[in-house]
Amino acid sequence: MKILLQDIAALIQAEIEGETNIEISGIAKIEEGKNGDISFLSNLKYENFLYDSESSAVIVSHDFQPKEPLNLSLVRVKDPYVALSTLMQAYEKLNPSQFSSLKAFVEKEDNTSIAENAEISSFAYISSGCKLGNDVKVSPGCFIGKNVTIGENSLILPNVTILKDSIIGKNCIIHPNVVIGSEGFGFAPKADGSFEPIPQLGNVIIGDHVRIGSGTTIDRATMGSTKIGNGVKLDNLIQIAHNVEIDDHTVIAAQTGIAGSTKIGKHCIIGGQVGFAGHIKIADYTKIGSQASVTKSITKSHQSLTGRPLLPVNAYLRLLSKLKNL
Amino acid sequence: MKILLQDIAALIQAEIEGETNIEISGIAKIEEGKNGDISFLSNLKYENFLYDSESSAVIVSHDFQPKEPLNLSLVRVKDPYVALSTLMQAYEKLNPSQFSSLKAFVEKEDNTSIAENAEISSFAYISSGCKLGNDVKVSPGCFIGKNVTIGENSLILPNVTILKDSIIGKNCIIHPNVVIGSEGFGFAPKADGSFEPIPQLGNVIIGDHVRIGSGTTIDRATMGSTKIGNGVKLDNLIQIAHNVEIDDHTVIAAQTGIAGSTKIGKHCIIGGQVGFAGHIKIADYTKIGSQASVTKSITKSHQSLTGRPLLPVNAYLRLLSKLKNL
Amino acid sequence: MKILLQDIAALIQAEIEGETNIEISGIAKIEEGKNGDISFLSNLKYENFLYDSESSAVIVSHDFQPKEPLNLSLVRVKDPYVALSTLMQAYEKLNPSQFSSLKAFVEKEDNTSIAENAEISSFAYISSGCKLGNDVKVSPGCFIGKNVTIGENSLILPNVTILKDSIIGKNCIIHPNVVIGSEGFGFAPKADGSFEPIPQLGNVIIGDHVRIGSGTTIDRATMGSTKIGNGVKLDNLIQIAHNVEIDDHTVIAAQTGIAGSTKIGKHCIIGGQVGFAGHIKIADYTKIGSQASVTKSITKSHQSLTGRPLLPVNAYLRLLSKLKNL
Repeated sequence: MKILLQDIAALIQAEIEGETNIEISGIAKIEEGKNGDISFLSNLKYENFLYDSESSAVIVSHDFQPKEPLNLSLVRVKDPYVALSTLMQAYEKLNPSQFSSLKAFVEKEDNTSIAENAEISSFAYISSGCKLGNDVKVSPGCFIGKNVTIGENSLILPNVTILKDSIIGKNCIIHPNVVIGSEGFGFAPKADGSFEPIPQLGNVIIGDHVRIGSGTTIDRATMGSTKIGNGVKLDNLIQIAHNVEIDDHTVIAAQTGIAGSTKIGKHCIIGGQVGFAGHIKIADYTKIGSQASVTKSITKSHQSLTGRPLLPVNAYLRLLSKLKNL
Repeated sequence: MKILLQDIAALIQAEIEGETNIEISGIAKIEEGKNGDISFLSNLKYENFLYDSESSAVIVSHDFQPKEPLNLSLVRVKDPYVALSTLMQAYEKLNPSQFSSLKAFVEKEDNTSIAENAEISSFAYISSGCKLGNDVKVSPGCFIGKNVTIGENSLILPNVTILKDSIIGKNCIIHPNVVIGSEGFGFAPKADGSFEPIPQLGNVIIGDHVRIGSGTTIDRATMGSTKIGNGVKLDNLIQIAHNVEIDDHTVIAAQTGIAGSTKIGKHCIIGGQVGFAGHIKIADYTKIGSQASVTKSITKSHQSLTGRPLLPVNAYLRLLSKLKNL
Repeated sequence: MKILLQDIAALIQAEIEGETNIEISGIAKIEEGKNGDISFLSNLKYENFLYDSESSAVIVSHDFQPKEPLNLSLVRVKDPYVALSTLMQAYEKLNPSQFSSLKAFVEKEDNTSIAENAEISSFAYISSGCKLGNDVKVSPGCFIGKNVTIGENSLILPNVTILKDSIIGKNCIIHPNVVIGSEGFGFAPKADGSFEPIPQLGNVIIGDHVRIGSGTTIDRATMGSTKIGNGVKLDNLIQIAHNVEIDDHTVIAAQTGIAGSTKIGKHCIIGGQVGFAGHIKIADYTKIGSQASVTKSITKSHQSLTGRPLLPVNAYLRLLSKLKNL
């Protein structure tokens, strides 16, 4: 990458304060930037790094007021995060893709329908009856079960397993070693104390623009569907049990587990290592802190809760300090 | 599936109350059923769905008393869950299997012994010295290490890794991306503060009718064996450390972790995200609630415990409400 | 293995007390040992097994004083753990390696550089631009992305995914189904409530003698590098987020999660199922108990902390007993 700062400014709709005729050759964190790099400052917690930074330019918001004189150019935008994202996407386009020109080792069966420009890598296995849209990429070591549908432009990274009847939307990214559509965990106890598995006949339906992190597992429904809405973002090593539903644009951090048949609303933000009991319902716009224990439905939207017992965030922090002094 | 309701009744030993001459074409949840579907009602929490259901028949227990008039046939059985399971298994047999007629890409070495009707899929790797029984299926992307034994009719789903010397019983289901037999986590501290790995020379022994969920990891023993008993059911993303023993018919939910050398009794039911310390022993028929912290041996059987500190369930719920009002 | 006890003594620099002319044929736990086995006793908790053991010899420390007469030879060393490790490594060398003489199915592209004696197994996929050192072994089902470097003598076990630009040091062991270098979990919220992924352009750098357990996930940095220091030992199913740094010789047990940009010092010992908030710093030689919640930086080194709230271990144990009596 070698771009003039003024061209970057045009790309991200920025106003430059300071030198504009600078050649930018990389993107770096503000505390690690070198001459020629562009950095960004969104959280003012990191403001002090700004005054020692060796970066040549820094993206800030329109209303940022530096407390000290600066050696670099300020690139003022409405939203530094969105600007950074735009800039990085442009940067990525200048780098070669990870999965071009592979030799296909895949078995295709009769009723499989694969778009001509879908890309199937070596050692990927596509079962019969699959429908792969335009620009789908299936990476090495993936297993795609019978009758799976993958919408256009979705990227399936290596060693992912997607079992039968799953439906993946458009523009999704499924990270390595994810398992989608495995059997839900349901058993009928028998008189002798052993357990009879209840066959799991449903499937998993995943919307568009969904991101699923490495090693996450999403079980198929007993009957009906386990559903992940549009724009949902899941981190790594998350457990989604059978018949769970997660509504649009909810974000969940790593190692959280959601028990069977629980429904989580739209636009929720869930921390890491949270546990949700089964058969409960979480209102839209709920925020849950890391390691919390959610055992009952949350019916009022827009709350921020955390802890065990689950309390409003401030009440839980007060409880923790009381416990310290008990 | 097109079956007369009276044939279903014969299969699951049911008595029909209402119309018997109905053609059943699917199995559906009571709230989602359509005309021609059969549903079931076990937990009375969902009873209200019954009165609006469009299903043609519903499986209930012999003693169920409807509170309102019904538009569908009641199919009365001793245990609705067991009946549903029987019915679903029959239904699954009418659908094609997921892994038929694959082209094998596997390497076989000299001392490998594979039953003639064992099925080994493309991109599966079978090391030398393995013994695979009748009707074993090894799916694409699996790695089976040296001298592994897999008993008859066990199903190894895609991308599973089973390392050397592991013994898997009969009629097991190992879900995708499980790892069995990897090195236990044991180190000897050295004088300079670094760690010397202690070689892990044992193996993993798994009984019959065991179910292991996606992404679960089971380490081999330092010496001797990590043991999983008959009929044990493990959910997804569980960690079983070296030398752990889990006795027959114990059920463990997702994301629970069991530290080294801990022994868990028969017929225990363990929730999700529970942590067990190492070198402890849990009595038979113990129930542990989700997210609990089990740091000491439990010697009395048939207890239901949860929380941190670990307490009888009711005592812990009282503690949680006291904490809320602290 | 058939070795004279006196040869073992020479190997591990031991003094024998009792019969020296014994042929040793196996290594076993003290409570499971049979005639011809050698066992070891380090933790005195297990001393009582010694007096009933059928083993022929037992490794103990120089200062161990038996409380009862013994039927076996004592093999006295400075550190029984280190001696056992040495002995086991010798034992492993007498057994055949797991990955010899495989037929390679790998695609090599132009700018890939693979040492002549590196071993690449069937169904492994090596992308262009990779550098694999001497004696590197890549097992079946592994995916190695573009421009990945793997240092000499590192062992990559089956079904591991290492994404582009990752750097793995020398003498590392990466267990099955590990994912290294997947995208960090970072999003810019948009005005309509949906999320824009922030491209993750950094990489992962892993030092020498690092051990990474099965199913663990290590995300690449947004910018710069996620760093794992020399001698670090990670157990199974751990989540390491983008831009985390773990300094040399730190040990972390299973299912712990570390949120983005957190830095953990040298020689720390971290239990299982611990959660670390993002953007915090942990001092060297910190010990954290299992299931603890670490939400703030720890600036003083050599502390032992646990719980939620995080307290010195003894203070937390006192809090737990107070809670029991609340």
